[in-house]
Amino acid sequence: MLRTRQNPALFIKVKRDGGVHSEAQINAFIRDYMAGQVTDYQMSAWLMAALLRGLDDAETTALTQAMLHSGKVLKLASVRAPKIDKHSTGGVGDKISICLGPLVAACGVAVPMISGRGLGHTGGTLDKLEAIRGYRVALDARTFERVVREVGVSMIGQTAELAPADRMMYALRDVTGTVESVPLIVASILSKKLAEGIDGLVFDVKAGRGAFMKDARSARVLARALVRTAARAGKRVTALITDMSVPIGRSVGNALETREAIAVLENEGPSDTRELTVALGVEMLLLGRVVTTRVQAKQKLERALADGSALERFERMLKAHGGDVKVVKDPSRLGSARERLPLFSLRSGYVADCDAHALGLSALALGAGRMQSGDPVDHTAGIELAKVVGERVEKGEPLAFVHAASKALARSELARVRAAFSIQSTRPRPKKRVIERLIP
Amino acid sequence: MLRTRQNPALFIKVKRDGGVHSEAQINAFIRDYMAGQVTDYQMSAWLMAALLRGLDDAETTALTQAMLHSGKVLKLASVRAPKIDKHSTGGVGDKISICLGPLVAACGVAVPMISGRGLGHTGGTLDKLEAIRGYRVALDARTFERVVREVGVSMIGQTAELAPADRMMYALRDVTGTVESVPLIVASILSKKLAEGIDGLVFDVKAGRGAFMKDARSARVLARALVRTAARAGKRVTALITDMSVPIGRSVGNALETREAIAVLENEGPSDTRELTVALGVEMLLLGRVVTTRVQAKQKLERALADGSALERFERMLKAHGGDVKVVKDPSRLGSARERLPLFSLRSGYVADCDAHALGLSALALGAGRMQSGDPVDHTAGIELAKVVGERVEKGEPLAFVHAASKALARSELARVRAAFSIQSTRPRPKKRVIERLIP
Repeated sequence: MLRTRQNPALFIKVKRDGGVHSEAQINAFIRDYMAGQVTDYQMSAWLMAALLRGLDDAETTALTQAMLHSGKVLKLASVRAPKIDKHSTGGVGDKISICLGPLVAACGVAVPMISGRGLGHTGGTLDKLEAIRGYRVALDARTFERVVREVGVSMIGQTAELAPADRMMYALRDVTGTVESVPLIVASILSKKLAEGIDGLVFDVKAGRGAFMKDARSARVLARALVRTAARAGKRVTALITDMSVPIGRSVGNALETREAIAVLENEGPSDTRELTVALGVEMLLLGRVVTTRVQAKQKLERALADGSALERFERMLKAHGGDVKVVKDPSRLGSARERLPLFSLRSGYVADCDAHALGLSALALGAGRMQSGDPVDHTAGIELAKVVGERVEKGEPLAFVHAASKALARSELARVRAAFSIQSTRPRPKKRVIERLIP
Repeated sequence: MLRTRQNPALFIKVKRDGGVHSEAQINAFIRDYMAGQVTDYQMSAWLMAALLRGLDDAETTALTQAMLHSGKVLKLASVRAPKIDKHSTGGVGDKISICLGPLVAACGVAVPMISGRGLGHTGGTLDKLEAIRGYRVALDARTFERVVREVGVSMIGQTAELAPADRMMYALRDVTGTVESVPLIVASILSKKLAEGIDGLVFDVKAGRGAFMKDARSARVLARALVRTAARAGKRVTALITDMSVPIGRSVGNALETREAIAVLENEGPSDTRELTVALGVEMLLLGRVVTTRVQAKQKLERALADGSALERFERMLKAHGGDVKVVKDPSRLGSARERLPLFSLRSGYVADCDAHALGLSALALGAGRMQSGDPVDHTAGIELAKVVGERVEKGEPLAFVHAASKALARSELARVRAAFSIQSTRPRPKKRVIERLIP
């Protein structure tokens, strides 16, 4: 088909001057970019103009679709169950996917989940899965579909085939100061998620100092844009805005978090990790239409945790991915850090606060995360919280344990971990993880 | 010297968020760009942020200096005369430099002029000079200095050694929609002009449909920024805002314009071409401090036109550059187009208007200009105006002559040239070329 090339400079000028792009113009721009006819320097100039001038809902949808169709779009036609995924905007101690996926699968909703790696102070599901010996995060599309069909859940990493435009654009945004744009974030997230071939999607939009969005207001702006754009793309969608001012559960660090996720699947684990898992599970079962009420959904999820069917799904997923299934019975097989240094409380009282951002940075420094994409990760490093917000601690009791490859490294983070805790004499009011629920 | 590299993404974010850069940060950014440590896509993202957020006077000055010092800065230490240049922002029929340089040199002010080529509907001094057989626009720095010293004037093209950052940044701006920024335009113009080793500078900022700035208001914004920044760089400076709604003089096209410039040097030529030349010359003599009053300056310039000394300087400049000196006595040596098609007036009356932009586009289409940098130019093509604004024309008399390489090409532009003229029954009020004069 003969087509006229769009002049990229004119396209950029439209956005620069506050104009609005048509769907066809956005398609041409992304298509020409993928074909090498729009250069990286033209793309980055446009990204900056888009960040500063904004994109409206129609433009955001068009950009999402253009990025989505830059690569392969999975159909998962052989999967009969409703296909629902969850996406979190990233936090500290966020191991929810690992327990949520198998749990929801046990309730009859298929979860084709493509996850990312940790970067900066936030962790990534892939790194947590890779704490399990043998677990392969790279499956080809056919195997991924088979695992989703047979097990009900598969968790893999981003592949080169899906939404390649997003990968190229994200690499540019990362080094050109153009990450912090709601429409660009929405298009980046959704173009990858829509490539999974899902029927619906739950967003866990984190708010608070440990999150990308530091306050509930900006989290709400992002959540609304995600929900609107996903709905325009024809997907069933819900978003929960959840608190990320304190870490989730009692662990920060890959193997430590995987262990905690397994505990939840064993019907144990910290109450807030469990609470958040069930809250997101309720939304997924509702979107999957395997239940009609929230009460039904909650009962179904709690039954799956209690009767071992969620844990059984997890074991089947591990097996399908080549992972060491024995970690379920023997979590010590996840490995442990050479050093586990206790941090003792200097006073008695109640834990009133625990700074998720500070602990995220500490975990990063201990080796659990990466400063730059491609850096190696120490799966055993991290922080184990002996006491969490609302709990009583006596002077001299451990507040936390710092896990690291050497005593010197562990010691170097003690002060930061200590400063993350606030102890007060009165019991603080309990805080809920879920702040708000948004639907289209 | 050990130095820490500046993080380009953080630098870009400062401007994106409306912040202000320090001089040291701007220096580091340009230096790292020239060293290949800041990529083109980072530069273009910053250029877009700078265009949309603006640069203040201190930032514009710092950027100008950083771009200036990206290359060689001429000193012209052996030139004893005051060194003053003129810069025009580009118009239609603007041959002023060619008569102004020798005229001012004849009055004791040295003119080290580095000019550009035409692009789009505007012409360039280099193309007009190259209409003279043999004229070499590329002189090395040593020869340039010698010609300025011995002749008082030399006109050359931009060299790779001077302000290379500007050349690289301009190439990017051209294709990323980041040309239209006053601070970026100022830094681009001034970084090149300051590299000439001048003591002072007169700006001819064009306003009107034939100019880059379409109205007097935006021309004034640019002129003020140019004057302020040049003054901050320690240069003596004046700007004239001049009308570019109608072409200058009676010719548009390279050889035609050179012929007109020679006529001015022969103390003839169209009155407005002469008026503008003298007006700019007055400013240059004042900045050069070879006179103390405007009246003195004007007398000196008119004497140099009348006594042949300006023309003699022109001949010496041609000789020094290898150009055909005989064109002065025999302008037919400039060559002429194969076709010279008259355009007859369809009615009698007074020429009330003549659209410079339309004629610029016609000249471009006839081959006198270039759509893209590097395109070849037909030096003989163009438009000769038989009648200009304010003059009486009778029905059937020629309004203009279209010069082109073929009858078909000449004919193809007749309608556009005709539409550029407005004829009315009453004599229009005369308009002045110089609209406003600005000093620091």
